Amino acid sequence: MQRAVLALGGNAISPHASAGTAAEQTATIGLTMKAVAELVVEGWHVVLTHGNGPQVGNVLVKNELAKDVVPPVPLDWCVAQTQATIGFTAATALEWELAQRGHDAAVVPVVSRVLVSRDDPAWDHPTKPIGRGVDEAEARRRMAAGDQRWVDDGDRGWRRVVPSPRPLRSLDRTAIDLLLDDGAVVIANGGGGIPMVDAEDGPPRGVEAVVDKDLAAALLAQEIGAEVLAILTDVEGVAIDFGQPDQRWLGRVGVAELRRHAEAGQFRAGSMGPKVEAVCGFVERTGHRAAVGALDDAIGAVHGDVGTQVVAEESP
Amino acid sequence: MQRAVLALGGNAISPHASAGTAAEQTATIGLTMKAVAELVVEGWHVVLTHGNGPQVGNVLVKNELAKDVVPPVPLDWCVAQTQATIGFTAATALEWELAQRGHDAAVVPVVSRVLVSRDDPAWDHPTKPIGRGVDEAEARRRMAAGDQRWVDDGDRGWRRVVPSPRPLRSLDRTAIDLLLDDGAVVIANGGGGIPMVDAEDGPPRGVEAVVDKDLAAALLAQEIGAEVLAILTDVEGVAIDFGQPDQRWLGRVGVAELRRHAEAGQFRAGSMGPKVEAVCGFVERTGHRAAVGALDDAIGAVHGDVGTQVVAEESP
Repeated sequence: MQRAVLALGGNAISPHASAGTAAEQTATIGLTMKAVAELVVEGWHVVLTHGNGPQVGNVLVKNELAKDVVPPVPLDWCVAQTQATIGFTAATALEWELAQRGHDAAVVPVVSRVLVSRDDPAWDHPTKPIGRGVDEAEARRRMAAGDQRWVDDGDRGWRRVVPSPRPLRSLDRTAIDLLLDDGAVVIANGGGGIPMVDAEDGPPRGVEAVVDKDLAAALLAQEIGAEVLAILTDVEGVAIDFGQPDQRWLGRVGVAELRRHAEAGQFRAGSMGPKVEAVCGFVERTGHRAAVGALDDAIGAVHGDVGTQVVAEESP
Repeated sequence: MQRAVLALGGNAISPHASAGTAAEQTATIGLTMKAVAELVVEGWHVVLTHGNGPQVGNVLVKNELAKDVVPPVPLDWCVAQTQATIGFTAATALEWELAQRGHDAAVVPVVSRVLVSRDDPAWDHPTKPIGRGVDEAEARRRMAAGDQRWVDDGDRGWRRVVPSPRPLRSLDRTAIDLLLDDGAVVIANGGGGIPMVDAEDGPPRGVEAVVDKDLAAALLAQEIGAEVLAILTDVEGVAIDFGQPDQRWLGRVGVAELRRHAEAGQFRAGSMGPKVEAVCGFVERTGHRAAVGALDDAIGAVHGDVGTQVVAEESP
């Protein structure tokens, strides 16, 4: 049966931008898993990846506030921590939704790592905002105290920015592949995966970076031979002239056409930009279909019925 | 080939009782993985479980210090967080040690849950100390503020105690079994597993408890049909009259004899007591061998050459 990779946006996990309590996240994740269960029951072999922005932000706040008592853990550890909490919560909810439907597939959260290059140009240009905003004085204090970079992120205040290197290889791909073959649903590469670089003489080591979760999902979809990559978010698809009076949602679109829109500057960095980059890359490298659609209609997006459906051939 | 479950004590992960930095833990875990790699290369199908006391203590401190800014996460989430950081660090080190030996098995950290009973008597008698010690005034303040229980833990100050219910079932056992069949090394049930109870009408839910890691290891060893359960710690085995002038280390011992020593009050609760309980239970239920030995000679303990080797038949 066919494999599908579903990349879940923040709205799949958190009721609001600041993550909320564990109970609130558990409830939101529970709702999200209903559609995933339907897809599994249909016969799709599903891998879930997910964002973790608010969650990793909370972990960073705790690190900072406790730093005189407990050694702060590095960013790769923070990503791992969010994979675990989101992962077991989603697995528990999805197994229950499957059981309600008479289906007993194991759902397996794999703590998973993604290799990035030590030579990625992103190291010299940290662009990915993480964590909560602070005021300018606090940001300047943090910059003076260490090697962090903070930027003015407008309404959200000053935020720390970290490099976002491209994912090269999913280091847990073998395990994910084996589990899918065994009929399990797998949760992997959450928060873009734990970023690692090869070392000269020793095991790979974690790095202070955040991999884009949609690029990590696209990579994994390619690696495991997925038929469909579905990026599920809080809008109904990819729009041209987004937010303008003549805004137009794209339905079925050839990857070359979508690339032209991207090159024309249609999609914002840090928002729709990486999603378009992820789906284009996947379709170009595999010839398979990728979707950007609303979480509320995840099933339709995977089926190819709704959202923006990106295909290898040009639209007629 | 034969399956072995290795339960790694705190000294396998942390250089000292307060956990240390991420770099220090990574270095300690790296050393521990050398012996594990040797066992895998010999052909053992290995599951690793591990303690997490200092790590979960640090997470709890962060929760507390940040609680006015970020909602604290419950104890089951804290356990999950430590499984992730210890798990991926161990997987990375072990894969590298295996590669050095020409072996390419996948090492898979599974975020893993353990079912406990809502009717366990432990709920009425919280006994497991967790986290850092505080002074009496602070402990009394915390007790007054909520439903936490704190006790005087002697030299370590006042510490929070939580229930430690018995593990009934490893909820991720299917995945662990599949991965072992596929030739992977699995890291599971770390920190005793994420404690969950069945709910009346909905998915299992996490609970504020800590399952003993050795009991969770023994349960998993039974569930997956392990030939050997090895509990690896900072002493060379089980001793009679421990710390007394006539202290005597036990070598090969029948489970009935070991039970008699336990019933005679030889082993301290919270220390050797649960280890003895874990190995006795495993040997009684399966007829297979269990060892308690020093981490420094993990290979010998698994082989049956050193440490306390607990077997079904009586010693001659």
